[in-house]
Amino acid sequence: MVFTLVYKERKAMLKVGVIGATGYTGEELVKILLNHPKVELTSITAKVEKESRMSDLFGRFLGKCDLMCKNLDVDEVAKKTDLVFLALPHGVSMQYAKAFLKKGKRVIDLSADYRLSDASLYKEWYHIKHTDEVNLAESVYGMPEVYKSQIKEARLVANPGCYPTVSILSSLPMAARHHLGLSGIIIDAKSGITGAGRKAALGLHYSEINESIKAYKINEHQHIPEINQELTKARGSRVDVTFVPHVVPLNRGILATVYMMYREKVRQDDVLSIYKDYYKKAPFVRVLDEGRLPEIKDVVYTNYCHIGLKVNEEKGLVIAVAVIDNLLKGASGQAVQDMNIMNGFNETEGLI
Amino acid sequence: MVFTLVYKERKAMLKVGVIGATGYTGEELVKILLNHPKVELTSITAKVEKESRMSDLFGRFLGKCDLMCKNLDVDEVAKKTDLVFLALPHGVSMQYAKAFLKKGKRVIDLSADYRLSDASLYKEWYHIKHTDEVNLAESVYGMPEVYKSQIKEARLVANPGCYPTVSILSSLPMAARHHLGLSGIIIDAKSGITGAGRKAALGLHYSEINESIKAYKINEHQHIPEINQELTKARGSRVDVTFVPHVVPLNRGILATVYMMYREKVRQDDVLSIYKDYYKKAPFVRVLDEGRLPEIKDVVYTNYCHIGLKVNEEKGLVIAVAVIDNLLKGASGQAVQDMNIMNGFNETEGLI
Amino acid sequence: MVFTLVYKERKAMLKVGVIGATGYTGEELVKILLNHPKVELTSITAKVEKESRMSDLFGRFLGKCDLMCKNLDVDEVAKKTDLVFLALPHGVSMQYAKAFLKKGKRVIDLSADYRLSDASLYKEWYHIKHTDEVNLAESVYGMPEVYKSQIKEARLVANPGCYPTVSILSSLPMAARHHLGLSGIIIDAKSGITGAGRKAALGLHYSEINESIKAYKINEHQHIPEINQELTKARGSRVDVTFVPHVVPLNRGILATVYMMYREKVRQDDVLSIYKDYYKKAPFVRVLDEGRLPEIKDVVYTNYCHIGLKVNEEKGLVIAVAVIDNLLKGASGQAVQDMNIMNGFNETEGLI
Amino acid sequence: MVFTLVYKERKAMLKVGVIGATGYTGEELVKILLNHPKVELTSITAKVEKESRMSDLFGRFLGKCDLMCKNLDVDEVAKKTDLVFLALPHGVSMQYAKAFLKKGKRVIDLSADYRLSDASLYKEWYHIKHTDEVNLAESVYGMPEVYKSQIKEARLVANPGCYPTVSILSSLPMAARHHLGLSGIIIDAKSGITGAGRKAALGLHYSEINESIKAYKINEHQHIPEINQELTKARGSRVDVTFVPHVVPLNRGILATVYMMYREKVRQDDVLSIYKDYYKKAPFVRVLDEGRLPEIKDVVYTNYCHIGLKVNEEKGLVIAVAVIDNLLKGASGQAVQDMNIMNGFNETEGLI
Repeated sequence: MVFTLVYKERKAMLKVGVIGATGYTGEELVKILLNHPKVELTSITAKVEKESRMSDLFGRFLGKCDLMCKNLDVDEVAKKTDLVFLALPHGVSMQYAKAFLKKGKRVIDLSADYRLSDASLYKEWYHIKHTDEVNLAESVYGMPEVYKSQIKEARLVANPGCYPTVSILSSLPMAARHHLGLSGIIIDAKSGITGAGRKAALGLHYSEINESIKAYKINEHQHIPEINQELTKARGSRVDVTFVPHVVPLNRGILATVYMMYREKVRQDDVLSIYKDYYKKAPFVRVLDEGRLPEIKDVVYTNYCHIGLKVNEEKGLVIAVAVIDNLLKGASGQAVQDMNIMNGFNETEGLI
Repeated sequence: MVFTLVYKERKAMLKVGVIGATGYTGEELVKILLNHPKVELTSITAKVEKESRMSDLFGRFLGKCDLMCKNLDVDEVAKKTDLVFLALPHGVSMQYAKAFLKKGKRVIDLSADYRLSDASLYKEWYHIKHTDEVNLAESVYGMPEVYKSQIKEARLVANPGCYPTVSILSSLPMAARHHLGLSGIIIDAKSGITGAGRKAALGLHYSEINESIKAYKINEHQHIPEINQELTKARGSRVDVTFVPHVVPLNRGILATVYMMYREKVRQDDVLSIYKDYYKKAPFVRVLDEGRLPEIKDVVYTNYCHIGLKVNEEKGLVIAVAVIDNLLKGASGQAVQDMNIMNGFNETEGLI
Repeated sequence: MVFTLVYKERKAMLKVGVIGATGYTGEELVKILLNHPKVELTSITAKVEKESRMSDLFGRFLGKCDLMCKNLDVDEVAKKTDLVFLALPHGVSMQYAKAFLKKGKRVIDLSADYRLSDASLYKEWYHIKHTDEVNLAESVYGMPEVYKSQIKEARLVANPGCYPTVSILSSLPMAARHHLGLSGIIIDAKSGITGAGRKAALGLHYSEINESIKAYKINEHQHIPEINQELTKARGSRVDVTFVPHVVPLNRGILATVYMMYREKVRQDDVLSIYKDYYKKAPFVRVLDEGRLPEIKDVVYTNYCHIGLKVNEEKGLVIAVAVIDNLLKGASGQAVQDMNIMNGFNETEGLI
Repeated sequence: MVFTLVYKERKAMLKVGVIGATGYTGEELVKILLNHPKVELTSITAKVEKESRMSDLFGRFLGKCDLMCKNLDVDEVAKKTDLVFLALPHGVSMQYAKAFLKKGKRVIDLSADYRLSDASLYKEWYHIKHTDEVNLAESVYGMPEVYKSQIKEARLVANPGCYPTVSILSSLPMAARHHLGLSGIIIDAKSGITGAGRKAALGLHYSEINESIKAYKINEHQHIPEINQELTKARGSRVDVTFVPHVVPLNRGILATVYMMYREKVRQDDVLSIYKDYYKKAPFVRVLDEGRLPEIKDVVYTNYCHIGLKVNEEKGLVIAVAVIDNLLKGASGQAVQDMNIMNGFNETEGLI
């Protein structure tokens, strides 16, 4: 046993609030933030009939979090926080993001409200008019693997959707190779049920979901424009993916199988190198070695994205299979990763 | 290959209606009745916003049942049916049972409305006043293993609840041994989620149920008086069970572990004989040989109840483990079994 | 009540045997055949350490099937049967099919041994030499929607695999349109775990499968040549699909999402008509109306295949989503459908 | 932003090894220890055909743990560790515990080998003779809520089984009230499947477990003597529980419903006070307020035990419902809690 003395320089804790704490992403944010060594969770709100302690709302927080979950009062929350997470439905977030930004708070928005830089696309896919185009113009898409330096300085981060996170991470390194003749991208995604949100609905009844699978919103899912936007930016020319989401009976996790079709031969080795190179500094993305394919169980309850690659050289077909935990890398984990970057913390702080 | 000529005497088909066809028990009734060789399903109703074909409401019935699911009109249904199944919530059934009986139709009610012969108990446990005590007085508890001859003649059958079915079948043969000194019965029941009904509720959300178990309504479940009533009748003196239901993540099936405590030694052999003897003429109850215990997967999608027995002779403790499919032997299958008996069909007709 | 007299002409029952009754497809065959009104199940065999009654091996058969499950003795089985189902592993079937055919029995083989008309392909994908090319030459691929008239007369039927059944049914009507410029077919299939067979394996442990999804054998699955063979025949020119199977946590069911890419525009209306027309006489295939997508829960425990269609007219992309129960339409149900056709029974007899 | 200076005194890291790292408890130990701020995981072994990196054996450890998983060499492991966890089958542990103790290492054994202080009971329930009675005599039962001070000094800790942990925690406070007239304890336990261990077995096949429940080893489970031993010690007179375990389809978690029968009236208030008082210093046990019942989902992936209480005052019946994560509080989490206590770390260090 050796004793050593260490000096540790320490900033004051970052004070944060979670707005919309009773949904799955809100609950998950609270869970992470309670264990995060650099932050103090000072404020929790949600639309509640009766203000209650978090430990009364979620047995999981018994003896761990006795903060009251209150209805949102922007002034009150602003007084107690440096940064707020908005875990709200789309359309609702943009009402409050504006208010918090005005008060000088930094905002990480988990809704779709600030993800599409083109407000008319927002209108088209979400069927409501965007009411905060000023802040939209300066928001940063919170995908650290692509926008790390911008996130650092951002006042407003638009945290990517769960489907877009896994879809973009698994296709972007190839999409960015603009000199290759891409003829199409098909994304076949399989998602667990927390992705649908925590709400009463017959379609989410255990026995309607269990022992079944279904496809839904083929080419109509609102996450499509977000995927196209990022791949188009990376490629420098229009990308228009085919996106087919499926509901699968598990709580957490998405597996996306992505088919990228090229007009020329592509080599397995090259593809593997492109991906490994692209993610060599990304702490939460792992590109698997040849012959290995990812499984949801390896990333669930973590912030990791695992990507496996299989190329049909003759057909010019690259198949990427990628997995994430939809509530972590697909939502709250990524949001905390963004918070870490924004505040100069270690990017992996508080995340596993 | 030999050809033979057979004569077959055949009654006209029994015309039946299902009232409340959009719940799990209603759907199951429709499924069974469509394949039943002796009945014609002529009428399907439910509380629906828009009248639709059953095949539009349930993909399962595509090409199998194009009957319209209408809102209930007693006159219209009565014209088309000889017998109706009421798969309605408690409190609602008693409004319509009366009406159908008045029109000379036979009624099998799957709700709790006619199960408790003492109307004051109904009030106590269901928190509403019984409004049809006249018919209550003549209703027959639809458990064929106990009341077969009465069911035969009944105009109104009260189909047992799912928990009571498995609880009573597994304890009644011992409870009926009134000369034995019973000091208590504990029923620890584990149920799949269709038992909670088909409705939108946060507590039934896939991710609230999956990967979890909970106990609920300990000693407060509304099925308790029904169990006590039947065991008390069988024993000839007051039985008051302890009943603890649990929610378990599976679609269908209940397993009940029943602890019967005696003030005297009981022998494994005797217990086994008592049960085998009691059910020797029951086509849907199987008492397992010594050393064998039942599993839900063996009875799911069937109308069977399997019972395994384990005795601690020293302690005077009889443990019965029983399984049923809650939607079949615990509801719609038993209702069809009752219908078969009421109409002189083979008791197992249309059931597997 | 009206009495009528009906005459019914009746053949003697067809005597059948199930070889390999302890696997999932064998168990399912026994279940169906026990309830089939035109057959008598006379012989059950499997590789067993100790010969046991089926009801001792499977609780489900208690009181329903007390036949002994014996080790296979071809002579003994042949004496008792007119037709045998071989539910054996590939490589094993071809040893016994030959023997039963020699004794004049009709054979329905559920393994892959007689599915590939080119024996060299069998060698390539199954890594063993085919040892019964004589019977292979006359075997009929048991897909009633394509080969009904040949099945009628067949002595040896090669029952299609589960993945091929859903893949072919969902793509064949379009593949058969040989004048359309097809540029590729991608099949993304999701299967329940009974598809992996009933055997001890760490990879099939409940906790390795539950709450996870994985892709496997990308472009390497042994069912690929079977799919290519049938689509190529239908199209009249070489079709080479991309096939990616996934393991999903449910017992039964496959959902296949099939992407068919054309070099020209295709219209949703036309596609729908093509499919509806193709299957207008198929009792177990349902093509859903526009806007409707299939779910596994609608076909599980039935012999149905449901197909939903979505066309991206601009891209020339036809997306077919199809579901089956892998143990029924994907195996034992289809085998019984074949048996019905071979014996002049109603095609749907004994199946739901 | 305020800067502060903090001093931190720090011991050298404790060097630990995990023996038997490829089972579920071993994997879980590795997961916890990798994130534990006070330990360094220096050695990982298991019975492996080929020595491999942990990240090759478990995708979960990609980029997190590249240690080789080797076959056990006691000398080699002893050189690199201060303390070892034995996550081995019973009968195997006692061969190695002895060896490590001899080399001056502290040992936490997760098997059953050192839990029963009476070696003849071990023989009776595990059917093998105990071969290390010397160390057995000094081993400490690793339940911190009961034996904290002894654990502190222990060289050899016998980590409790999963069923005993939840059974004892939920009944001990009442059992310890020796002046009350206890007439019997029934423990009805429901466990997830990781409890059965990570191994190939037909009975653990996904489709044999999914959508089913079964009871097993009624009054014959090898965890019974361990429960009786601890309750008897606490009570000061012989306690002999009835124990019925059930297999339920979920990965992780046990819920035990415990029925404690008294010969006298007991009051809900008193019972609640007894439990709250008993666990007032236990960081991982939460006694729920009246009217609240625990759910597995609230404790899964944590080291907590939640206990809810319901008393039938008339019957003298105390019902305790308790939940734990079988792999954490029921195994590896508790083992790390013991390690923390043994080394003077904060009891909750590295655990959530």
